[in-house]
Amino acid sequence: MYAFGSRGNTGPNFNLLLLIISQLGLHTVEGVWPLPQALASSAERYSLNPQAFDFAYGKRSAAQQGCSVLDAAFKRYFTLIFQDYTSANDVLQLSEDKPFTVEVSVDHDDCESYPKEDSSEKYNMRVSAGQALLNAETVWGAVRGLETFSQLVYQDDSGSYFVNKTEIDDFPRFQFRGILLDTSRHYLPVQAILKTLDAMAYSKFNVLHWHIVDDPSFPYQSYTFPDLSSKGAFHPVTHIYTQSEVRRVISFARLWGIRVLPEFDSPGHTKSWGKGQSNLLTPCYRGGTPSGGDEVDFSCWRSNPTVRSFMQKMRFGVDFTKLQAFYMENIVNITSALNKTSVVWQDVFDYHKRRSSLSVVEVWREGCYLCEVRKVTKAGLRVILASPWYLDQAGPKHNWARYYSVWPLAFKGSEEQKKLVIGGEVCMWGEYVDATNLAPRLWPRASAAAERLWSDEKQTSSVAKAFPRLQDFRCMLLRRGIQAEPLTIGHCQHEYLGV
Amino acid sequence: MYAFGSRGNTGPNFNLLLLIISQLGLHTVEGVWPLPQALASSAERYSLNPQAFDFAYGKRSAAQQGCSVLDAAFKRYFTLIFQDYTSANDVLQLSEDKPFTVEVSVDHDDCESYPKEDSSEKYNMRVSAGQALLNAETVWGAVRGLETFSQLVYQDDSGSYFVNKTEIDDFPRFQFRGILLDTSRHYLPVQAILKTLDAMAYSKFNVLHWHIVDDPSFPYQSYTFPDLSSKGAFHPVTHIYTQSEVRRVISFARLWGIRVLPEFDSPGHTKSWGKGQSNLLTPCYRGGTPSGGDEVDFSCWRSNPTVRSFMQKMRFGVDFTKLQAFYMENIVNITSALNKTSVVWQDVFDYHKRRSSLSVVEVWREGCYLCEVRKVTKAGLRVILASPWYLDQAGPKHNWARYYSVWPLAFKGSEEQKKLVIGGEVCMWGEYVDATNLAPRLWPRASAAAERLWSDEKQTSSVAKAFPRLQDFRCMLLRRGIQAEPLTIGHCQHEYLGV
Repeated sequence: MYAFGSRGNTGPNFNLLLLIISQLGLHTVEGVWPLPQALASSAERYSLNPQAFDFAYGKRSAAQQGCSVLDAAFKRYFTLIFQDYTSANDVLQLSEDKPFTVEVSVDHDDCESYPKEDSSEKYNMRVSAGQALLNAETVWGAVRGLETFSQLVYQDDSGSYFVNKTEIDDFPRFQFRGILLDTSRHYLPVQAILKTLDAMAYSKFNVLHWHIVDDPSFPYQSYTFPDLSSKGAFHPVTHIYTQSEVRRVISFARLWGIRVLPEFDSPGHTKSWGKGQSNLLTPCYRGGTPSGGDEVDFSCWRSNPTVRSFMQKMRFGVDFTKLQAFYMENIVNITSALNKTSVVWQDVFDYHKRRSSLSVVEVWREGCYLCEVRKVTKAGLRVILASPWYLDQAGPKHNWARYYSVWPLAFKGSEEQKKLVIGGEVCMWGEYVDATNLAPRLWPRASAAAERLWSDEKQTSSVAKAFPRLQDFRCMLLRRGIQAEPLTIGHCQHEYLGV
Repeated sequence: MYAFGSRGNTGPNFNLLLLIISQLGLHTVEGVWPLPQALASSAERYSLNPQAFDFAYGKRSAAQQGCSVLDAAFKRYFTLIFQDYTSANDVLQLSEDKPFTVEVSVDHDDCESYPKEDSSEKYNMRVSAGQALLNAETVWGAVRGLETFSQLVYQDDSGSYFVNKTEIDDFPRFQFRGILLDTSRHYLPVQAILKTLDAMAYSKFNVLHWHIVDDPSFPYQSYTFPDLSSKGAFHPVTHIYTQSEVRRVISFARLWGIRVLPEFDSPGHTKSWGKGQSNLLTPCYRGGTPSGGDEVDFSCWRSNPTVRSFMQKMRFGVDFTKLQAFYMENIVNITSALNKTSVVWQDVFDYHKRRSSLSVVEVWREGCYLCEVRKVTKAGLRVILASPWYLDQAGPKHNWARYYSVWPLAFKGSEEQKKLVIGGEVCMWGEYVDATNLAPRLWPRASAAAERLWSDEKQTSSVAKAFPRLQDFRCMLLRRGIQAEPLTIGHCQHEYLGV
């Protein structure tokens, strides 16, 4: 660790530097998205030559060569940084450039593990002549730092690569920064999911909330209950996720430091489950005979004689929320027994009496969502905020600025309560979204949410200041092959060509 | 030409047939989009084997082998029809299938010409055992018929190809069926334009309205005034259309029977022109000195002493609309001298006093657009309707049904007036659209407009009936590699994989 000014101190100096830099017309570190917590850079710059550029492990690093996460990250970021570079260039290059090494050191050898709820993503970096020193507690922090480094590198008009003298001290504001993908309303090919994971890493998201099944289809292939997908998926072969595909998504996400949070929503949203599993859904009755249905529709439960007699036995009276809470508590207990944390949608919190059995509540309803956040945190439960980030919606009112101007902690509450807000999530529900429009609908609008969730709020409260930075970031996404839609009139040096 | 029942007669029989067919669970010709004017099909079907399938010219056809338009169409449609077929399949195929020939005959040898304002696109087709006879007045009509034929072919579960016995008599309701692409607010790579032309042909659009330059950039490369693009484009090399690229777009469009209607909008929307051409724009004055600006802003014209003295000389008084009309009349005269028809935006019609000098007016404003259509046609001018088809807008209210439920002739007016409505146009303005989101924003919503412009209104007035047909058509677009977004929850056999 190297000495670094406090965040309060770096502000003014940094502004001065920026002023100088912009007068010289030079590249600035402002380009990093989401904005690091603290950074300082100068106009001093170092040329990078792909042939004399290397990633290396620090001598004291707990992780060394063979570390799957970092070995893979080194390869990826070499390609991402030197997009123009092919070995064919070798002949033309003069090798008089000085070598440059990015030296990565981590405190823990968590190379073969999976990122966890509380994994540190903190890192610091000092870029100076000939080297960048990147330090992190975990490999996940190092991956975040490598992303930042890749965004510091730029090309001049002749195509030469440069990086400015820079110091960065960075960590996420919120621990949980997720994107929900819905693969039930439309099937997303695995390639589309992997590509989304790439783009997520570029914005430092760390959770893929995989809403894998729902009413319309059950694409998850189970070994134990194969009929669930063979009868419940849109197509039993082409529109399912095999076990090996699911494993592939999880492994791929791991290398980017992204957790995969699977969701098998119940007891509602289970219409497709019934196709492959008879007697699973509650039959509703009309005039004494079953009439179908499966949503959490209390009138359905009321119509079912078996449900009614169970209610009686449990002494629930006619309060069906008690039955639903009973069900949910069983599910949460099963999850706990597997040493996993359950996340429940806010509805469960709202009807649940014994709230202490819950742990994390995802707030999703429109309206005064901060009222709900306040209520949930007051009950001592953790919150994931989704309401302001339903990005499946399109149209002029749903532009990036709307998703940027969100203040998750702007509710009356104690410090303890605020700490219980563990993060937020972009929801991309699938009613009108599949692989044809997923990427332009997500990017760069989701990146606006990403900065809100990662960066210091005071430094990133201005839409006007963020705008040119997000435009640059969007151009970088195009350069990396992400089909990110435009924010306004204009152009990028490298337009999207993948048609 | 073969005998064919009138449209009035085929209706009921056809409905009966459909009933029978849907009971048998067989493929129906309902799948053709936009719906042909008259069609009848039966459950009798013929198997098609790619190895024993051929396109041929009828003996009496005015066009024969070597006809560039049809030779190219035959090649394309073979690939589009037999998407699965590769020569590698040859080994496995049994060649016991009967041969099938699509025999195309046209009245005129217009093979090397360009489609014109009044080119016929009429065709008829009879599909029977071993052959399909396709007749048209022009090669453009034949191309439309080939599209229809390609949509009649389907595969069964084992992958075999079939076509049902079918008779079709078809022609467009409106002559002008356009899509406007805006390449100034964002540059669209040529590939994106060509891909759009492909998709346009699938929906039987016949005009590409190329809004090539505007305020933000001037990508058109002129030999005479090279500075216009070298100084006015976003980038002088990567963000321009060279002469050869423009020619490529026009030739490519021609092969699909699509006209390219270029637009160099003026006198407003010309900010980018001024960058490469000094003294072209009217300088506005503030306190006696020029202050920039270029829009048709009368306060700007009023501020300019040169403009004021010209007004005096022309005896226009202080009525600047007279000046604008004078300008427009000059432009229209230049166009006429080149033997071309001018299209003006409705504003010009609104301020123009001598309306007889105008010929085609494009109605684009929101509100009571049919009032404007009525007014323009009453003045004896032709109309292109764009108002209801501004597809650059997104969001739940701007779904396909909105663009389908448009009745261009539902205004009070004489038969003569109605005939003056020559068609309509989908406008894809570029503020928020570039190659990253062009395709999903156009398709399949533009196809809804396409059916309104091609098909009989009475047969296509129901959104509910159109819905499943458009869903099928959208799946076909995916199969052909067009990134058409979903209409609702569901799936296609072949999802979009191009990520």
